[in-house]
Amino acid sequence: MKHIVMALVAVLLPCAARGQKAAPSAPAQVAQEVRNYRMENEDRIVRELCEFLAIPNVASDTANIQKNAAHLVEMLEARGIETHLLPVTGRGPVVFGKLITPEARRTVIFYAHYDGQPVDPAAWTDGAPFEPALRDAVIEAGGKRIPFPANSAGHRSIYNDDWRIYARSASDDKSPIVALLAALDALRARKISLALNLKVILEGEEEAGSANLQRTLELHKNLLGADLLITADGPVHQSGRPLVFFGNRGDIGIEVTVYGPVRALHSGHYGNWAPNPAMALSRLLASMKNEDGRVLIDGYYDDAKPLGEAEKKALAEMPENDADLERELGIAKPEGGGKKLVELIMEPSLNARGLRSAYVGAQAQNVVPDRAEASLDARLVRGEDPQKKFNQIAAFIRRQGYYTIDHEPTMEERRSHERIAKVIYEGGYRASRTPMDLPVSKALVRVVQDATGGTAVIAPTLGGSVPMYIFEDLGLPWIGVPIVNYDNHQHSSDENLRLGHFWRGMEIYGAILADLNW
Amino acid sequence: MKHIVMALVAVLLPCAARGQKAAPSAPAQVAQEVRNYRMENEDRIVRELCEFLAIPNVASDTANIQKNAAHLVEMLEARGIETHLLPVTGRGPVVFGKLITPEARRTVIFYAHYDGQPVDPAAWTDGAPFEPALRDAVIEAGGKRIPFPANSAGHRSIYNDDWRIYARSASDDKSPIVALLAALDALRARKISLALNLKVILEGEEEAGSANLQRTLELHKNLLGADLLITADGPVHQSGRPLVFFGNRGDIGIEVTVYGPVRALHSGHYGNWAPNPAMALSRLLASMKNEDGRVLIDGYYDDAKPLGEAEKKALAEMPENDADLERELGIAKPEGGGKKLVELIMEPSLNARGLRSAYVGAQAQNVVPDRAEASLDARLVRGEDPQKKFNQIAAFIRRQGYYTIDHEPTMEERRSHERIAKVIYEGGYRASRTPMDLPVSKALVRVVQDATGGTAVIAPTLGGSVPMYIFEDLGLPWIGVPIVNYDNHQHSSDENLRLGHFWRGMEIYGAILADLNW
Repeated sequence: MKHIVMALVAVLLPCAARGQKAAPSAPAQVAQEVRNYRMENEDRIVRELCEFLAIPNVASDTANIQKNAAHLVEMLEARGIETHLLPVTGRGPVVFGKLITPEARRTVIFYAHYDGQPVDPAAWTDGAPFEPALRDAVIEAGGKRIPFPANSAGHRSIYNDDWRIYARSASDDKSPIVALLAALDALRARKISLALNLKVILEGEEEAGSANLQRTLELHKNLLGADLLITADGPVHQSGRPLVFFGNRGDIGIEVTVYGPVRALHSGHYGNWAPNPAMALSRLLASMKNEDGRVLIDGYYDDAKPLGEAEKKALAEMPENDADLERELGIAKPEGGGKKLVELIMEPSLNARGLRSAYVGAQAQNVVPDRAEASLDARLVRGEDPQKKFNQIAAFIRRQGYYTIDHEPTMEERRSHERIAKVIYEGGYRASRTPMDLPVSKALVRVVQDATGGTAVIAPTLGGSVPMYIFEDLGLPWIGVPIVNYDNHQHSSDENLRLGHFWRGMEIYGAILADLNW
Repeated sequence: MKHIVMALVAVLLPCAARGQKAAPSAPAQVAQEVRNYRMENEDRIVRELCEFLAIPNVASDTANIQKNAAHLVEMLEARGIETHLLPVTGRGPVVFGKLITPEARRTVIFYAHYDGQPVDPAAWTDGAPFEPALRDAVIEAGGKRIPFPANSAGHRSIYNDDWRIYARSASDDKSPIVALLAALDALRARKISLALNLKVILEGEEEAGSANLQRTLELHKNLLGADLLITADGPVHQSGRPLVFFGNRGDIGIEVTVYGPVRALHSGHYGNWAPNPAMALSRLLASMKNEDGRVLIDGYYDDAKPLGEAEKKALAEMPENDADLERELGIAKPEGGGKKLVELIMEPSLNARGLRSAYVGAQAQNVVPDRAEASLDARLVRGEDPQKKFNQIAAFIRRQGYYTIDHEPTMEERRSHERIAKVIYEGGYRASRTPMDLPVSKALVRVVQDATGGTAVIAPTLGGSVPMYIFEDLGLPWIGVPIVNYDNHQHSSDENLRLGHFWRGMEIYGAILADLNW
């Protein structure tokens, strides 16, 4: 009995503390070792993930987001990682961790976030985004809910690769954190030493726009000495193959409200006379983009920097699976005037992410609504400034005849202006990109390709947004190594994680920890 | 004690049963008698109203709508009105009542409905649409919640005319029912005999489109012998003056859903590529009407019958208070290209009563939504057929390139059609109108004018819809005599009743019961 306990402690302590040194190992070999470890420990790994997912993690839910941070501290310190909470007023702290490898030359920061997008439980199949559920396939393929297998000490590989765990942040972005820690456990269990010093930065308000990350990191600059930052956020390529990406788009959020009468009016007694804000909003949105998805706002594409040669080459080499995607997603004709998806995400976007005015369906009331709201997000590419982008959009709204304000209109404003739009800038951040031909870039690609049999897709940029500009500003090159399935319902209801991707992610992170050097 | 009980019973029995006959009374005199009675009985009248309002009455809420009907039976039978429930499968029954006045030549049916529009409690200031609340003024004027006055036996006029009762159906349409019964109580208490036989038809699914009213009445045609139907539904004129109206618009409801990808997609990874249904819906709606509110659907105005001379004259005589309304409602410029409100409601309308796609505001998610919904209603005028109107709108949607369906699209449909719209016809009914120069029309106007000091506004049609075509089909002339305040938030949240209007309504109904003859 004592023997077993000592063995466990040995597993949980850093290699350095054990005073031993494993031989260098090729990434493929490390990946295999991690896989073997995982197959013997799936139960424990999934349990750790599910316990983490069970803590509600919407950034604005202050009490719960703090619980997530406290839970993370326990998870990191259990691995002997020195942990500090960098406080953020009214939000979850930045969880910072550091694990020194005495003989390492390089330091790599691993970035992920532990908050998730807001949830509407009613829109989830199981109705409970924070009660992780296991299904034997993706819901769209008829996946049925199954119980988590009972504790299986001694059984190998009890989870099928195609099984999925459903929960908010199952993919975005809690599972990469668990995958990294499990990879670390695996290396230690297999006595494989780390090639680098590891730091972690785990953010608690990425889905709320990372408004405080930059300021927080600047206050703790002394902690951030490093040679590379790896971000774990985002899904892999839609082909299912692993992904390494070197850039991402920026992002801004805008809320637009247009106004009708000061209160909703009976559509019989006032229809034809009271201005209808839902129709006005429709006209405004329709004027912003054409049917191909081309933004009609003046100068919208002017600041976008053209792609360099390396990026063009990488783009050309990326797998083309648009037809498969169209089929899977039920899209008869994509926007973009015939361009490929990978080309289109290199351009700025303008997206209507939501509409609301009065009620529809069974709740519909026969009224002229008092207001109509549109929630917009714009993705930015290199060369574009977030505030300027917002200004362009707001100026366009004004040119459509709107009096724009940042507050609920007063009666006097309503009486004096035929068209009123409340236009609220939620903030955002710019795009960023790391050159693909840096030594570190090449070294990382090599490790990931070795660990995955050369199947990784190498992308100049991701369509999504992660606040990597912050690290760019700190002079730190960053590269994205996401691990989760692309069909994860990220940001929507029924978010899920495919276990096969999770396992492979552990192997990739294990190979990086053990072998990245340049 | 026995004496008091006998007196009460006498009050509650029909005049005929008491074997006495009061002298004929001029409407103004009857109105005064009803007022005197009311001032001594406000407490009891308001209590009866509030008990009725406390029963939730959304037509689809089967259990509660039945409770409303049972409650109505008690209210009617307490007045000695012979009551029958005409069943409607899955809905509240039509409550039919009959009160014979032995020497009367004429029979008048009083129509109202006891169901109300759907509610969103969160949108109500007090959060509880079925817990009547008293306020000392309208909320917009800073009305504060006050307790209902304690039982005031012996006190006169405890309720201020400007006080309001807030509850679903406080105006639309429960209070007219209570006003009629209270007027009947008043006549009996003052020993004023009725000039007519009274029948009542109280419907339980008017706000759900009266889908079963016609069939139900046809099954019980033998009950419906009458010379006139008076509908109590609708508000009075916006000037605050009483209203008599001779027609109303028809109404149809349409739910339109357009589709994007089969599931909501990350707006970063797929923005610019996945077709955005919120933008598509905006373009579709924008194509339906121009900025003046003119409907651009081919032939939309073709079937509308021109107004006759009597209607034109009545229109010209109606008070003009558009400027006041604009000011009150915070409208800088109405739709309609400069026409007056009373003219515009004589035309067909097309109204976007609601929009929904994904989420806005704090709940916004960075997605390309999977669908966008618009709820439309169209008001019809004389000459227009509901089904044809729907067909026109659906055909227009098809001409915009949409493949229209009546179900959720299949994967095959999604893959084959670039634009898909689910277009659901909720049904509806046509407009109707009673000639203003019939003897009964003139007689009714005379009574109402006499009872109200000649202040009533006489309108050829109401902008709203009541299923009066059903009675027109039965060969029965009908006239509208609404009593509630126009600013009652009908169909929306914070529906309310101004007590001064309620009291005046009692007087008008009392005068009609006592004096209408032709």
